[in-house]
Amino acid sequence: MNGKIVIGILGSGTVGSGVVEVLRENMGDIVQRIGRDISIKTVLVRDLSKKRSNLDGIKLTDKAEDILNDPEINIVVELMGGLNPALDYMLAAMEQGKHVITANKDVVAQFGEKLFATAEKHHVEFKFEASVGGGIPIITPLKQCLTANKISLIMGIVNGTTNYMLTKMAENGSDYDEVLKEAQAKGYAEANPAADVEGLDAARKAAILGSIAFNTRVKLEDVSVEGITGIKAADIAYATELGYVIKLLAVAKDYGDQGVNVRVHPVFLPSSHPLATVKDVFNAIFLRGNAIGDAMFYGQGAGSLPTASAVVADIIAVARDMVIGNTAVTGCTCYNDRPKCPLNATESSYYIRLLVDDEPGVLGAIATAFGDSDVSLKSVIQTRMVKEYAEIVAVTHVVKHEKLEKAKALLQNLPVVSKICNIIRVEEE
Amino acid sequence: MNGKIVIGILGSGTVGSGVVEVLRENMGDIVQRIGRDISIKTVLVRDLSKKRSNLDGIKLTDKAEDILNDPEINIVVELMGGLNPALDYMLAAMEQGKHVITANKDVVAQFGEKLFATAEKHHVEFKFEASVGGGIPIITPLKQCLTANKISLIMGIVNGTTNYMLTKMAENGSDYDEVLKEAQAKGYAEANPAADVEGLDAARKAAILGSIAFNTRVKLEDVSVEGITGIKAADIAYATELGYVIKLLAVAKDYGDQGVNVRVHPVFLPSSHPLATVKDVFNAIFLRGNAIGDAMFYGQGAGSLPTASAVVADIIAVARDMVIGNTAVTGCTCYNDRPKCPLNATESSYYIRLLVDDEPGVLGAIATAFGDSDVSLKSVIQTRMVKEYAEIVAVTHVVKHEKLEKAKALLQNLPVVSKICNIIRVEEE
Repeated sequence: MNGKIVIGILGSGTVGSGVVEVLRENMGDIVQRIGRDISIKTVLVRDLSKKRSNLDGIKLTDKAEDILNDPEINIVVELMGGLNPALDYMLAAMEQGKHVITANKDVVAQFGEKLFATAEKHHVEFKFEASVGGGIPIITPLKQCLTANKISLIMGIVNGTTNYMLTKMAENGSDYDEVLKEAQAKGYAEANPAADVEGLDAARKAAILGSIAFNTRVKLEDVSVEGITGIKAADIAYATELGYVIKLLAVAKDYGDQGVNVRVHPVFLPSSHPLATVKDVFNAIFLRGNAIGDAMFYGQGAGSLPTASAVVADIIAVARDMVIGNTAVTGCTCYNDRPKCPLNATESSYYIRLLVDDEPGVLGAIATAFGDSDVSLKSVIQTRMVKEYAEIVAVTHVVKHEKLEKAKALLQNLPVVSKICNIIRVEEE
Repeated sequence: MNGKIVIGILGSGTVGSGVVEVLRENMGDIVQRIGRDISIKTVLVRDLSKKRSNLDGIKLTDKAEDILNDPEINIVVELMGGLNPALDYMLAAMEQGKHVITANKDVVAQFGEKLFATAEKHHVEFKFEASVGGGIPIITPLKQCLTANKISLIMGIVNGTTNYMLTKMAENGSDYDEVLKEAQAKGYAEANPAADVEGLDAARKAAILGSIAFNTRVKLEDVSVEGITGIKAADIAYATELGYVIKLLAVAKDYGDQGVNVRVHPVFLPSSHPLATVKDVFNAIFLRGNAIGDAMFYGQGAGSLPTASAVVADIIAVARDMVIGNTAVTGCTCYNDRPKCPLNATESSYYIRLLVDDEPGVLGAIATAFGDSDVSLKSVIQTRMVKEYAEIVAVTHVVKHEKLEKAKALLQNLPVVSKICNIIRVEEE
């Protein structure tokens, strides 16, 4: 094509402002990299009366149609977040022949298939690098750089809020409520932190990563989710003592004929694992392929400029294709229809912390409950008294999740067991 | 294009065999990802009489012309290594209208410009992801995923041999000669280890990374190189004591108007730095961009299958373009002509280990030498006796390299200084 490359941006929040800043700051290099001028024409804002000195020289509107129906705009960047009207706007932009770029994990996780189909129908590109891992390149590497591999495993620290909280709990021995308040004060956690701490944000990213890694559609409802709300200072302390760190992971694992399993939950990671050193709000995606072996991608998983780094890279990729006259190399890559392996069929070691009556025979009763469930134990330590109860920490050998669930049910029914405080998966090296 | 995608491979060593294995093992997925069949027709071998059961069904030849002049072959993969005849074969293939993929860092570092120009002239693609970092995707991420950034710094552990040796020295307290023998026994170091331990392998990768990161041609002769042959067990022990690990780094840094500096040398890295946990033969490339902030790419930097992962990804990328009818998105990206910042103008903290006479006034004389060079010291520790000499370890504040060189010259001329054992840069957080 010969015309100009003109961008319309839907949304002027943190990421929208970052995209404008990065494009302006690095415009000289970006024009060199594209081979043609590029400009932002219009930004959709919620409140036209608000002063926005950072958007000087750009047309502001509160009507999406001013972008969606503007024939001069050929790239629409959706940075509003949420499902609607973001989805409708993206579909409308595609129907108008505009390329679409988004950072919106919610929409991609739930409507990726529809967006790809619409993009293909209207011969436009659809890109979403920023939807997982913020600035970290992971979508393009998976779709273009790791194509020689069968991916068998992805384990990602993909939520900065919870990683910050777990890091602070480990560094300071603080309890959950305390670090949550601290994270909220620093702006790392929202007033309503549910989406982060309950693992839903990570689940959306897990669905996206799983879909791409295994070339099969993984829907949000396919992802089993457990957050960090149950993690206590005691769990962190035992993890440290045993040589582990606790991380909230998005896991996508291939179980062969049984299918693929995608889940989010806390994990005891050996402190020597590459992911164990990923601290604070940093994210990292670790993966295993049958050619590359183990690899990891590390960086800032959120924030205005890092997220804009991914969005603007997508803009540049689309613009380069426009200049050269190329078609998108990769559209939807879900060419398989793999079964979903149920959580019960997955395997792991488990850490279990219990409060039990402090009397003879208790350990025997517990050991019997594990034995009756066919769960063999690697270690059992009775560590301290919590009020009148003895605290017991057990670590199992690798067992199927369903056996662990059976053991849990038996333990819960034992009169000597006061409480099962926590059960957390343990990743062995 | 409508025809078949047919590969010819120059070289049947470790990487060549890996490429055949990966293509065969994952062919089902690879064909899905390309959208068309792909096959290996011919492999150039050195000795036709050698049995190669892993190449069954592939035509073997000892004449490069059988590949370069075969009109059916449209992708030539160069995996011979060395400058010649690899370079000539690649140029000849391009002149015949064939796309070229290589893992050859020597040729890319020295003749990248010529290869790109020839590829452009003949409208073919030229790719070399495997030339740096083995399986780790870094060339494509730099050229396509980090394009929104001005990169200011790259620090890479890009040589597995030396990283293995430094890891073992730190873990076991062994001395250099001992771990070199161990590395040779394990096949991690060659009989003549010079290219690895003297930093030349890393220097070639540094030149490639610097050229791409700063969009300016960095030649091998622009890279200042210092290897690990001078690292003693004592240096490792002091590093550990001070909270650092020693790593051999390829560094490419932007000094603004002074230009860019690309170098290879050992560095004291804080043990909390993401690169510090990269052990054994693993590689990692850490970088800093003005949008993304800090990021790191980690994985296996060598070996048959990991390197093949990168080569086959390049094959798939070229094949996809052929199927769609796309042109290469990125050719040569050296659109700038940046000056080269001399080593003397770079800045760092430095660790200095000296043997001095054990007598009054020595510390004062040493402090004066540093003072006269305008080098201020952060700490000086006199630690132990080595035979009749006292060992002194000094760490400087950040100073220009030329001042450090002046201090070194003054120290060398001090009668009380018996020996400057080592000077190593210290990376502060």
